[in-house]
Amino acid sequence: MLRSDGRNDDVLREIRITRGFQQWPAGSVLIEFGNTRVLCAASVTEGVPRWRSGSGLGWVTAEYAMLPSATHTRSDRESVKGRIGGRTHEISRLIGRSLRACIDLAALGENTIVIDCDVIQADGGTRTAAITGAYVALADAVTWLAAAGRLADPQPLSCAVSAVSVGVVDGRVRLDLPYEEDSRAEVDMNVVATDAGTLIEVQGTGEGATFARSTLDKMLDLALAGCAELNRLQAEALAQPYPGVLPEPKPRKSK
Amino acid sequence: MLRSDGRNDDVLREIRITRGFQQWPAGSVLIEFGNTRVLCAASVTEGVPRWRSGSGLGWVTAEYAMLPSATHTRSDRESVKGRIGGRTHEISRLIGRSLRACIDLAALGENTIVIDCDVIQADGGTRTAAITGAYVALADAVTWLAAAGRLADPQPLSCAVSAVSVGVVDGRVRLDLPYEEDSRAEVDMNVVATDAGTLIEVQGTGEGATFARSTLDKMLDLALAGCAELNRLQAEALAQPYPGVLPEPKPRKSK
Amino acid sequence: MLRSDGRNDDVLREIRITRGFQQWPAGSVLIEFGNTRVLCAASVTEGVPRWRSGSGLGWVTAEYAMLPSATHTRSDRESVKGRIGGRTHEISRLIGRSLRACIDLAALGENTIVIDCDVIQADGGTRTAAITGAYVALADAVTWLAAAGRLADPQPLSCAVSAVSVGVVDGRVRLDLPYEEDSRAEVDMNVVATDAGTLIEVQGTGEGATFARSTLDKMLDLALAGCAELNRLQAEALAQPYPGVLPEPKPRKSK
Amino acid sequence: MLRSDGRNDDVLREIRITRGFQQWPAGSVLIEFGNTRVLCAASVTEGVPRWRSGSGLGWVTAEYAMLPSATHTRSDRESVKGRIGGRTHEISRLIGRSLRACIDLAALGENTIVIDCDVIQADGGTRTAAITGAYVALADAVTWLAAAGRLADPQPLSCAVSAVSVGVVDGRVRLDLPYEEDSRAEVDMNVVATDAGTLIEVQGTGEGATFARSTLDKMLDLALAGCAELNRLQAEALAQPYPGVLPEPKPRKSK
Amino acid sequence: MLRSDGRNDDVLREIRITRGFQQWPAGSVLIEFGNTRVLCAASVTEGVPRWRSGSGLGWVTAEYAMLPSATHTRSDRESVKGRIGGRTHEISRLIGRSLRACIDLAALGENTIVIDCDVIQADGGTRTAAITGAYVALADAVTWLAAAGRLADPQPLSCAVSAVSVGVVDGRVRLDLPYEEDSRAEVDMNVVATDAGTLIEVQGTGEGATFARSTLDKMLDLALAGCAELNRLQAEALAQPYPGVLPEPKPRKSK
Amino acid sequence: MLRSDGRNDDVLREIRITRGFQQWPAGSVLIEFGNTRVLCAASVTEGVPRWRSGSGLGWVTAEYAMLPSATHTRSDRESVKGRIGGRTHEISRLIGRSLRACIDLAALGENTIVIDCDVIQADGGTRTAAITGAYVALADAVTWLAAAGRLADPQPLSCAVSAVSVGVVDGRVRLDLPYEEDSRAEVDMNVVATDAGTLIEVQGTGEGATFARSTLDKMLDLALAGCAELNRLQAEALAQPYPGVLPEPKPRKSK
Repeated sequence: MLRSDGRNDDVLREIRITRGFQQWPAGSVLIEFGNTRVLCAASVTEGVPRWRSGSGLGWVTAEYAMLPSATHTRSDRESVKGRIGGRTHEISRLIGRSLRACIDLAALGENTIVIDCDVIQADGGTRTAAITGAYVALADAVTWLAAAGRLADPQPLSCAVSAVSVGVVDGRVRLDLPYEEDSRAEVDMNVVATDAGTLIEVQGTGEGATFARSTLDKMLDLALAGCAELNRLQAEALAQPYPGVLPEPKPRKSK
Repeated sequence: MLRSDGRNDDVLREIRITRGFQQWPAGSVLIEFGNTRVLCAASVTEGVPRWRSGSGLGWVTAEYAMLPSATHTRSDRESVKGRIGGRTHEISRLIGRSLRACIDLAALGENTIVIDCDVIQADGGTRTAAITGAYVALADAVTWLAAAGRLADPQPLSCAVSAVSVGVVDGRVRLDLPYEEDSRAEVDMNVVATDAGTLIEVQGTGEGATFARSTLDKMLDLALAGCAELNRLQAEALAQPYPGVLPEPKPRKSK
Repeated sequence: MLRSDGRNDDVLREIRITRGFQQWPAGSVLIEFGNTRVLCAASVTEGVPRWRSGSGLGWVTAEYAMLPSATHTRSDRESVKGRIGGRTHEISRLIGRSLRACIDLAALGENTIVIDCDVIQADGGTRTAAITGAYVALADAVTWLAAAGRLADPQPLSCAVSAVSVGVVDGRVRLDLPYEEDSRAEVDMNVVATDAGTLIEVQGTGEGATFARSTLDKMLDLALAGCAELNRLQAEALAQPYPGVLPEPKPRKSK
Repeated sequence: MLRSDGRNDDVLREIRITRGFQQWPAGSVLIEFGNTRVLCAASVTEGVPRWRSGSGLGWVTAEYAMLPSATHTRSDRESVKGRIGGRTHEISRLIGRSLRACIDLAALGENTIVIDCDVIQADGGTRTAAITGAYVALADAVTWLAAAGRLADPQPLSCAVSAVSVGVVDGRVRLDLPYEEDSRAEVDMNVVATDAGTLIEVQGTGEGATFARSTLDKMLDLALAGCAELNRLQAEALAQPYPGVLPEPKPRKSK
Repeated sequence: MLRSDGRNDDVLREIRITRGFQQWPAGSVLIEFGNTRVLCAASVTEGVPRWRSGSGLGWVTAEYAMLPSATHTRSDRESVKGRIGGRTHEISRLIGRSLRACIDLAALGENTIVIDCDVIQADGGTRTAAITGAYVALADAVTWLAAAGRLADPQPLSCAVSAVSVGVVDGRVRLDLPYEEDSRAEVDMNVVATDAGTLIEVQGTGEGATFARSTLDKMLDLALAGCAELNRLQAEALAQPYPGVLPEPKPRKSK
Repeated sequence: MLRSDGRNDDVLREIRITRGFQQWPAGSVLIEFGNTRVLCAASVTEGVPRWRSGSGLGWVTAEYAMLPSATHTRSDRESVKGRIGGRTHEISRLIGRSLRACIDLAALGENTIVIDCDVIQADGGTRTAAITGAYVALADAVTWLAAAGRLADPQPLSCAVSAVSVGVVDGRVRLDLPYEEDSRAEVDMNVVATDAGTLIEVQGTGEGATFARSTLDKMLDLALAGCAELNRLQAEALAQPYPGVLPEPKPRKSK
């Protein structure tokens, strides 16, 4: 039984990774998981937040948001509501945590990288697309910092990070759910993994249902295979040259 | 190698469940996981939020908060800061989702149950203690609604829900982490399970580290055994009579 | 004397208009004025805000925002700051007012069109690009409503609307300023005009300087010529078929 | 004519004072006035707010709040509403002011004591219970600071502080009103007094009624007698040893 | 010993009451207590807040605020800070409560009167000046409602209300403190009284000091005499005709 | 055809300028354009905002607000709503920008002048009255700073600034619209000009209509004549001595 978009249960949607989408940020990546499109921008600033200052460690954080026009029915703007919703907070924290698992903050030196993940179009799996694209933007920002001679150590990235959703729909375990499947899934899981096959984050939720441990195992199988494929596509994209003008090496001012 | 509090790796802290802690809410439970103490109160109101009105379905939601004096160093009050933090949002949503997995909202009828989980003292595992205590408060609130003749169906609860933390500390997989272990855990996982042994939620996070799938398996073993023990203690507590005065059956007004 | 991008004083940057950029909104247009890129999405909802309800009139409003990664130096997210800045408010109001000048709200019937103008990349003139793109998105939304049989009158649009900036830079009156010129302009003016050559809005400001009335006249000459050229490009873009699937005519429910 | 709980007009409800209720704060007191239960925690931090820094003076402040589940009908959480209500502000300020009247801030040295008064259960008189309990928590915090060798002077407390409500109910002047009486009182007064019999604060309000000066005099008689009894119970509680582990004397770092 | 402005201890500052200060509100009074100037405007709206609707009772409420330029050093605008401070809340509630003590809300009928007390210039005693002026504005608003035929009963006002501050300065009990005295007063009290000599509100505070009951008695003597004089001046002002055009009697629509 | 208040199309309402309206601010001016009354207060503080610190430049900014009782129907207080509306923001920015066009911020030295424009009574044209009055208050504040010896250069003001509204009502171009005309104007324009006849700001808006360039020209003619008359009245007012006590020259502390 094929899915409504013709895929087998264990197949990802079409993935597209476009580096250099914007001109100002050090890394700017448009990632597409089928109709889901997320713009992931990595902005570099010298220095770290005050609570971290003087530690010699860098900082990586993320902010996730959705354009009002990204969803089937227009959603209200959080800036207009004057507060950030729980879901937004939760996903921003997940992205930041996932990226910090792959970077040595001492090697980064006292630089801050903020990754903005703005959903241009939503069709399920926006948070996993965001993590997968954010890693590529982060890698570009690291290349930029290396060129500028601002890293404390030449290679702060210890692994690549990707993420994918998996769930139980119509009683079948399926990979990379579009909105149509996600909205009626009995179980919904997001898995963040490294290109070494280890796990960074596992979040599985029964949606008004509970699930057996054997189901969890099957979902992990599919998700890890999906992440491996995503890692391959990230590597392929990053094999191309940096999509912009790299800065001249400018040694940091000693204080 | 024993843990600093003398427990084996697979043993829960001392658990105490006190029903009827407050006099006004239909359910009010003080739950203690060692030094962690959470007050879980289930308040019943007739009717449901507007977006759900007329559906015939009830609603269960939760709000988690910490007293400023609950933590080792006093924490700022979120009401004073004027906004709820990401962590608070995330835990409130987790508790609500976990409880909705065990209740038939059609059987509940158009009633709302709000579960307030206020941490009186924090020593690790506040969210899992909150879920475990909230289930007992919810069960009392259901008993109260049944006595009042306000349920659409006599038994809306389909299972019991408990939760426990598990993690990797000093390279060992350990159950029910106190703050001292939690703060230096390499991997941290929260598992919400039913008394049928099925899963409701699994959230595992590498804290600046990644973890192998085999570690995930060992953590699940310990967590499920811990949840089963918690279910036994919940049942024991609920075997006592309702700790207050039940209302007279008052059939709901037809509209 | 040519400008740094090689243009003459009275020439627009390269303008690109891409209809159907997103799949959900009734109108979705990416407009580019050189490196300035704004996504203009027109979302349709049935009914009007409460204060207008029952009047028989429709409503058109706009919200302007900038992605944090759109600017040279990353800007803070207004949703995170918890309040919308004065500049954002001002531009949102300007866009809404400009569009309402070209639409007969009685002919629109009790429908609301919200135009979201999200700046993807900023290089000067974002508000004028937003207005020019928003008109095209609005026209698509009107086509969509007409196909759905939801208009009170078949042709609610009375004219086309475009906007352009003009300013005094290095003592010369110039059209369509990029950021590099805008940031050092002595006088800055935004003009919103119709394809009939009439004015909707004129906002001229001396930036730490004052200006003679004769300068105002020269700026208006250039701006009106620029708007005429933008009107031509809008018409050209709208001459193509609707970039999506139009709804079936579904007569509105009588109440 | 006895009151509904069997007391005479001039008798306090049953008062219970439990020191050492929580483990982290320097002072933590659960105080009960009948069914009203307030947790008063005194947290110590080194240093003072910026506006006071370098003055050599310490600072004492208070925050009052109610658990949502404390009231007969659940009340909304102020953190969720995003703002603190007028009543909460007013009571917080009253508690802080009352405690500052009994402490020599120069003797306290540049330390800050924050007193959190969280109402666990509300049955009238929460603000007066809070002040009475807060004084005991403050005394414990001072003992803690003395043990740590952090006071500028050994005895900063100049007197003890207690508070009680008094009102006119059914035409009779009554002491320490429970909610049932408070909600229908014609006049309502809160009196804060010292163990020397002097006054710190007097707040009397006609609730939709006015009152004669002679009534004010009778209310003051009852209130001052009630405060004297509360002072006796505070002294009795504080005669027990400090309910926790006192710190070693650690002389403050000279700067 | 005279005070710095030459008054005896028991003498009010020069009081001026100007009715009809603004043209739109039904009552608009500028009241001056020496250099303290407060604009008190009573605005009438048909209907009552939702929680009171259908009760047949009217509603009177007050809002107090200070112009940024009213104080010696400019104070920040609360609208800019995005939240109302505790002091503002407290005073607004006091004014509203004081006025509701003198009006029969059933006689008012389902009308709302909002009294805005905006301090134009602050020199001590702004809250007592506000209450005294607000009564006059309220009386004018009642006259306006009577003329419009919108009262449920012809005379809803049961008494006149005035207020004055009193305090202990330099060891002497003094009436109506200007800022220079208020800022160094050992005890500070505000008294709200009726023209029948009864009390509505008594708020006495030791400012870092405590006070004897005999001092309280002396302060009340002075305050009540001061209120009587204020009542006389209110009556004198209200003896003049209504300072504007009264509406034609328009019987309220039956619903 | 005369206007409803008897004026010809090109005549200003009666203008009154009262200096020294409040006692604390360095400049305090009540300006009246007919029934529109705005209190403009210029407060001086030493130093500049942090982002400007050390530049040697001063800062001038403005805040505009309306008393709730200033409008025909009472308007809600922005401090109570917890946020400043778009219109308020827009006008505040306009006033600040207009005043900065006439002052040399280097000559001002590192001083900040905040101009508070609080509308006491609104009858159209509040923003133009605010700008016109704010200039007079600014001039007084500059005189005050000069007397105090705190200016970097003796004459920082380069010109005088005034503003007036102009519009198309009933098909006729009219000057200085009261609310009755403003609310039904087809075109509405605000012009800010200097006493040298040059322009600072021009904001013209078609209100649901568009306008020809020839109409714009006629509006400018009227507005510039109106501004010239306002400049004359400002000069007349400022020809009187400073309405208060000037400070003694106190040279600024060298750092």
